[in-house]
Amino acid sequence: MINTPYLLFLGDAPDPLAAKVAQGIRDWRPQYALGQLRLDGCQADMKLPDMTLTEGRAAGAQTLVIGVANRGGRISPLWKSVLLDALAAGYDLASGLHNLLRDDADLVAAATAHGRTLHDVRVPTVAYPIANGVKRSGKRCLAVGTDCSVGKMYTGLAMDAEMKARGLKSSFRATGQTGILITGEGVPLDAVVADFMAGAVEWLTPDNDPDHWDHIEGQGSLFHISYSGVTMALVHGGQPDALVLCHEPTRPHMRGLPDYAVPKLADLRDLALQLARMANPACQVVGISVNTSGLGDDVFEDYLAGVERELGLPTVDPFRQGADRLVDALLAL
Amino acid sequence: MINTPYLLFLGDAPDPLAAKVAQGIRDWRPQYALGQLRLDGCQADMKLPDMTLTEGRAAGAQTLVIGVANRGGRISPLWKSVLLDALAAGYDLASGLHNLLRDDADLVAAATAHGRTLHDVRVPTVAYPIANGVKRSGKRCLAVGTDCSVGKMYTGLAMDAEMKARGLKSSFRATGQTGILITGEGVPLDAVVADFMAGAVEWLTPDNDPDHWDHIEGQGSLFHISYSGVTMALVHGGQPDALVLCHEPTRPHMRGLPDYAVPKLADLRDLALQLARMANPACQVVGISVNTSGLGDDVFEDYLAGVERELGLPTVDPFRQGADRLVDALLAL
Repeated sequence: MINTPYLLFLGDAPDPLAAKVAQGIRDWRPQYALGQLRLDGCQADMKLPDMTLTEGRAAGAQTLVIGVANRGGRISPLWKSVLLDALAAGYDLASGLHNLLRDDADLVAAATAHGRTLHDVRVPTVAYPIANGVKRSGKRCLAVGTDCSVGKMYTGLAMDAEMKARGLKSSFRATGQTGILITGEGVPLDAVVADFMAGAVEWLTPDNDPDHWDHIEGQGSLFHISYSGVTMALVHGGQPDALVLCHEPTRPHMRGLPDYAVPKLADLRDLALQLARMANPACQVVGISVNTSGLGDDVFEDYLAGVERELGLPTVDPFRQGADRLVDALLAL
Repeated sequence: MINTPYLLFLGDAPDPLAAKVAQGIRDWRPQYALGQLRLDGCQADMKLPDMTLTEGRAAGAQTLVIGVANRGGRISPLWKSVLLDALAAGYDLASGLHNLLRDDADLVAAATAHGRTLHDVRVPTVAYPIANGVKRSGKRCLAVGTDCSVGKMYTGLAMDAEMKARGLKSSFRATGQTGILITGEGVPLDAVVADFMAGAVEWLTPDNDPDHWDHIEGQGSLFHISYSGVTMALVHGGQPDALVLCHEPTRPHMRGLPDYAVPKLADLRDLALQLARMANPACQVVGISVNTSGLGDDVFEDYLAGVERELGLPTVDPFRQGADRLVDALLAL
């Protein structure tokens, strides 16, 4: 668990997209985002107060989060001097970079000297159990996609936010590095050893109040041959009561796999439901979340209406329309 | 790759079952099994010449294989003195024990001093790629099970042996520790990091001659919620041309999961085929392998005939009847 609130380090981000992690924290956990720390030339702006390390600490920040991706996953000398100063100033550090903080001897020495913690959210730190399949109390919703990177995390965060706004019991359960940095905790599922994947998901979504919903962040796709095993572990370890189907309608083929066609939503519905019912026979598909960013303002609503007619399920783009219809469908179960 | 041939270390095996790994090597790679090394009280016997370390070396043995499981996966002081002597005598060591050879400082020091290699087959030593799904040349057969531990490894080894006996091109591709110790190479799939599982299977079964068959060792089951993600990676990374369904008819529930029923063979056929065809649209189910060890001599053939009638696929127990009908079905594709 990463101590909050955060000061968001944007470094010398070459463009706004490079600061995707910071943007996610800003959008979904604004109460964690006290301020931003930008270096010369930074092209990203979270519209947060610019703070020095000292100002961030004075405002109460506990952790400096590297909210920006850099070229090659390396920690540049410029960044490193900031990180060392941050440790000296009393910050923990949190990072999802490929190059681990813990593999940098200087950062390790400084963290030890100052009694601070280095969080590399790409690396599991828990000895997860083997999944036991025992039915857990509370409710779980899992986003599954026709492909990778179609908006599963966004969908889960939006549904969680909508439920919280209604005063309902809800948690977003992060399974990827961006989700973990946003929420401060979770399981970096793609880095878990194979035998323990489903057990890690069980660990992540424990027994809870009967009216509490976990929104489990999806990963990969049952139809994406590179990562389908990870998705399978989410479907079986998650024991979902509800599935939301996620889709991006303009993709020419499966991400990174030119020879593989994107499946139909109906095929995803049937396969995901069959697999999910092995672990939870009561599981239902409650709705469809479409990332329509590739469709113009004049056509996206027609597209959504067409999918809704065809499949008979509430179909929305939560970014453009909000997640309230998906939450309504969940609560109607 | 583990250097062959082997001297098989049976230790102080409390019963024959404890020496399952040694028995597998003895049964499936007799040419690797030069002799056995037994300590006082050993209750297992591979019917191989008993050899001292010196005799084994003189006979040409390259590696001392720990062919026995011990209580708790620990390396006892008695065993350790033998292992240290083996390193001094010029043996590499190979082990599938939970406690790793490489974590024992004395063994590491001795291996370094004598220029020998410690093989812990539970631990991946290759940086496997992410699966790319590109079609590979050559043919592949994957055993999939209604449950874990229903005879998938045995089935693959038996089909490989039958093809080799007919002079056909065939490889057994090990994905578990016992299979790796039997064949001397492979991928310990359940210990691979999630993102790389399917890529590890692609790596294990590379391009080959058009008439060459890889028999890929199955793991877990698509219906076993603890390990289904591993099975999924085999189905998608393996790109099988042929599936053999494996089953054990007397099991009361899924192994280790009292609340989960064993699926019907027809359900396994349909699900495995649907998933396999994502990676290889030409995939076919060619036969059924049943572990009938729980059925008496008077009933097992009736059971097999009933399954064969119901599903219309060659159905055999390869241990009792041989794998020739399964190989015939494979070659008829």
